[in-house]
Amino acid sequence: MSSNAMTGDRQRMIDLYPSRVSRTPQILDRKDAVLHGGDSAPGPLTREQLQFYDQHGYLFLEGFFSGEEVQYFRDELQNVWEAGKHSDAPEIIREPESEEVRSVFAVHRNNQVFRELAQGPKLVDIMRQILGSEVYIHQSRINFKPGFKGKEFYWHSDFETWHVEDGMPRMRALSCSIALTDNHQQNGPLMVMPGSHRHFVSCVGDTPDDHYKQSLRRQEYGVPDPDSLTWLYQKFGIQTPTGKAGSILLFDCNIMHGSNSNITPIARSNVFLVYNSVENKLVEPFHGKKSRPDFIAERQ
Amino acid sequence: MSSNAMTGDRQRMIDLYPSRVSRTPQILDRKDAVLHGGDSAPGPLTREQLQFYDQHGYLFLEGFFSGEEVQYFRDELQNVWEAGKHSDAPEIIREPESEEVRSVFAVHRNNQVFRELAQGPKLVDIMRQILGSEVYIHQSRINFKPGFKGKEFYWHSDFETWHVEDGMPRMRALSCSIALTDNHQQNGPLMVMPGSHRHFVSCVGDTPDDHYKQSLRRQEYGVPDPDSLTWLYQKFGIQTPTGKAGSILLFDCNIMHGSNSNITPIARSNVFLVYNSVENKLVEPFHGKKSRPDFIAERQ
Repeated sequence: MSSNAMTGDRQRMIDLYPSRVSRTPQILDRKDAVLHGGDSAPGPLTREQLQFYDQHGYLFLEGFFSGEEVQYFRDELQNVWEAGKHSDAPEIIREPESEEVRSVFAVHRNNQVFRELAQGPKLVDIMRQILGSEVYIHQSRINFKPGFKGKEFYWHSDFETWHVEDGMPRMRALSCSIALTDNHQQNGPLMVMPGSHRHFVSCVGDTPDDHYKQSLRRQEYGVPDPDSLTWLYQKFGIQTPTGKAGSILLFDCNIMHGSNSNITPIARSNVFLVYNSVENKLVEPFHGKKSRPDFIAERQ
Repeated sequence: MSSNAMTGDRQRMIDLYPSRVSRTPQILDRKDAVLHGGDSAPGPLTREQLQFYDQHGYLFLEGFFSGEEVQYFRDELQNVWEAGKHSDAPEIIREPESEEVRSVFAVHRNNQVFRELAQGPKLVDIMRQILGSEVYIHQSRINFKPGFKGKEFYWHSDFETWHVEDGMPRMRALSCSIALTDNHQQNGPLMVMPGSHRHFVSCVGDTPDDHYKQSLRRQEYGVPDPDSLTWLYQKFGIQTPTGKAGSILLFDCNIMHGSNSNITPIARSNVFLVYNSVENKLVEPFHGKKSRPDFIAERQ
């Protein structure tokens, strides 16, 4: 990427991943590396782990945090949940039908425990290794998927939204999901299509103003079409990395993922941290409208 | 059961399983056998299989139908689906949000292929063995759980509904679900709580008139409360019997079961047959309102 392209001026920034601009969906090739420092970049991950991530677009690390660490985070999670119940802060997102707290955003800013978690070397060194540069936190949130009435998240690429609605120029970011409860096959775990991160599904349609207020509760724009999903599924299949509390799932910003509903009594909670390369800072959103608030997409 | 109790007169029929009559949920013990002919009743199932069914309330038989048989049923399924698309017959139930065909009822009456399937000795001999008497078909349907937008079925005991809304007096019925597509962990398979069939969850609330028109699309009455479900879950856990097309799942009328949504591209279709003992014929519904139509609950 030339440094000219990084001036933050949308008029001069070429849109390598156009979406929501056409009435026909399209599948485009990825134009960015997955491992931005290669598979021999120094850091905590082995070369085999880096190669797995490169090929599949995700990496699951069982037992990454100890039982003690998990308990410490869970206690804090409980505090955040209690505080969220009666708050009308915009960082708190509720279930579409029940008004239960579904997510709390920006915990890396507003909560000391999760700030230290997000910025500690244990995680950051991995992100540097994969993104091949210094990193910063693009977004953080806690997800509560309650028992009995956890709703589904339909298939999506995070990058599609971050690109169109937030102005993230290139695919040089990744998510880290930290399981604070055991994940089973039955309580709505995250499903990924391994390998799908090498294809960009350009979605149809427009983006309404202030779309994020609805989309965090139920997605209606930037939704991949069934034919593209079927194509990806037939090529790559579906994996459901599950494991005990304390495991982490790293996944590329462009991997196709989603989750089914959860009617079981087993709640599912996780901390979700998105790291972006400092060389991939946000520009103006590619849909040409105003950008989403800072608690969803860090612009500092 | 005394023969007096079987006269069909609701006034003289003791309600052994009251539900939707109180404002507090209750968990009652089962008052009926599970194997009505014992574990040495003659028939296709082995004693071990009968004992498994007795203990867990279900039995999964992989590869029960051959690939050829499955293909034959699938072709007919396609015909039923096509015919259902543009029909306004009451037997055809649609998805709450999309109007897609979700279920077609009474296929054992209206379709020759599925009538022969339902009434053939291959299945009927098993049902006789478990129910310890001659049997008849209480209900039949085909379920289409489409890819991408298959909705969840919340936890329920079939018997609770059949008892309250249809007047099935005792627990002497079972369901047979025949998989016509492969069932995976990820495409919304049936979940059961093994052992829960020995407890009856008496639900709170009333039943509105003509409730069935809504309840087949989305259940709102006769819904078990979260505390009872948590109690059952902690005692019994959850199993998800899955396998290839052609497998069958037998399950007791009172086992607690449900399924999550299906956002995967993989459709899930099955034929669902309910067999009841001829000694357990329907009486007046226990909610004291009019009974549901014949295509949902056979009264002949």
